[in-house]
Amino acid sequence: MARPEPWQLLAENYPVSVVMQTRFQDIDPNRHLNNVAFAAIFESARVHLNRALRPWAERPKNERSMVAAVTINYLGEGQYPDDVEISSGVSRIGTSSYVIAQAMFQNGQCIATCESVIVCRTDGEGKPLRPEVVAELEKMRTTG
Amino acid sequence: MARPEPWQLLAENYPVSVVMQTRFQDIDPNRHLNNVAFAAIFESARVHLNRALRPWAERPKNERSMVAAVTINYLGEGQYPDDVEISSGVSRIGTSSYVIAQAMFQNGQCIATCESVIVCRTDGEGKPLRPEVVAELEKMRTTG
Amino acid sequence: MARPEPWQLLAENYPVSVVMQTRFQDIDPNRHLNNVAFAAIFESARVHLNRALRPWAERPKNERSMVAAVTINYLGEGQYPDDVEISSGVSRIGTSSYVIAQAMFQNGQCIATCESVIVCRTDGEGKPLRPEVVAELEKMRTTG
Amino acid sequence: MARPEPWQLLAENYPVSVVMQTRFQDIDPNRHLNNVAFAAIFESARVHLNRALRPWAERPKNERSMVAAVTINYLGEGQYPDDVEISSGVSRIGTSSYVIAQAMFQNGQCIATCESVIVCRTDGEGKPLRPEVVAELEKMRTTG
Repeated sequence: MARPEPWQLLAENYPVSVVMQTRFQDIDPNRHLNNVAFAAIFESARVHLNRALRPWAERPKNERSMVAAVTINYLGEGQYPDDVEISSGVSRIGTSSYVIAQAMFQNGQCIATCESVIVCRTDGEGKPLRPEVVAELEKMRTTG
Repeated sequence: MARPEPWQLLAENYPVSVVMQTRFQDIDPNRHLNNVAFAAIFESARVHLNRALRPWAERPKNERSMVAAVTINYLGEGQYPDDVEISSGVSRIGTSSYVIAQAMFQNGQCIATCESVIVCRTDGEGKPLRPEVVAELEKMRTTG
Repeated sequence: MARPEPWQLLAENYPVSVVMQTRFQDIDPNRHLNNVAFAAIFESARVHLNRALRPWAERPKNERSMVAAVTINYLGEGQYPDDVEISSGVSRIGTSSYVIAQAMFQNGQCIATCESVIVCRTDGEGKPLRPEVVAELEKMRTTG
Repeated sequence: MARPEPWQLLAENYPVSVVMQTRFQDIDPNRHLNNVAFAAIFESARVHLNRALRPWAERPKNERSMVAAVTINYLGEGQYPDDVEISSGVSRIGTSSYVIAQAMFQNGQCIATCESVIVCRTDGEGKPLRPEVVAELEKMRTTG
């Protein structure tokens, strides 16, 4: 759980970005966005990125991708009802897994980063990523 | 828990409207928006309406408004990741309480209505709404 | 949205009861349980009651029950991390629908009541409740 | 985001443990516990552990502890309505921060681990942990 690297804090290093709303229910007793709300917002932005990845549509029935690990670094407090902007990209491509890196911005400040390890399973077992998937992931690379 | 009246299903009968996002976390096992997610979305839109009501800012310290009751009528299934539009207004003004009426629209269909009874308390007791509050609420009336 | 009737506030008038935990995430900016958290807790207790109703297991494939409406009356503030106790029962049996009545107790006080209209659908249309379902619902009656 | 170490998967290596309920709302479209629900459950168990740490009660007004980072490793699917058991302890004590390690068990299997970095701030700046806090944290050590 190292601190995020400097490139992770800059929106320009991520290929896609989406504005997301905060909800009243996200507020914690200190009147800031709750830690778990960050997780829910990052998750929705991750689904948004996954839907932009074409080959999922034609994926084999016995293939499934799963979230194996998620790390969130909390860098600043989030405010309600202000929107947040989530930047996302693929920061690492392994043999049977890849990493989605994300950053959350609010009012001009990076308030959190997130890294999610996605594992690809075929019939329940870890299998190498198909070349079409790798090609698609390469287009979504973070820079830095 | 009567069925909603016809006027409640038409966006044009509400003075304000806000587009709200759905989240991956809102989906239930049937791949529709969960009933509780509807409640969270209506709540955020209600807070949005309350913030548009000016006199709250200068309200006396010992005055507080509380949600006394909420009824949601579920009329259709909600889809993710489609946005919803929430229309809101004040449908009834009583002595020490008022009712906020809302409707949720998605893909051109009214999928839910909501009515919330808001009670005004001063030092913990129900007190008549101040004239400035009533004046402000009158501007937010639903029609129909 | 009438106020709850006196019988609804007494645990002894409901056939089943379940203790449910509160979560840190349920707390709102006023350090009480959030309105939406009440809805989530009532929902889980309702699922608990539904699972106690036998004939669901052998229900026809084209039959489905849906929540058509939910009303929650908020009577007191909920505290974290104290548990709540939810009492539930069937308060009304109609032709193609029934009503589940619930009450939430915490530290000896009734802090909320809930009424949910459940509609039975066969091939997407409202159909009379099957006699086995009615017989099962009758066993779960509230009194009062 | 290394894989959890073997000791993290055994309940006996954690000093405290709490049973937590799952909620209907926690279920995702695949009928398993949603990733964000894991985060909410771990958070509640962490609050539970923090409340067992005495010196918090008498902490100086200008001192605050904050969650700086959370990593969750997802090892198995979670089922509803089964309870989960969360084991927690302090796995590392640094100069101005410490790490809470947790594991989630369900039906005899470890389905997730969690590590949270807690930072201690005095007047908004990182400050060394007070000796009383360190002494208390030492009593809550994980083994392994």
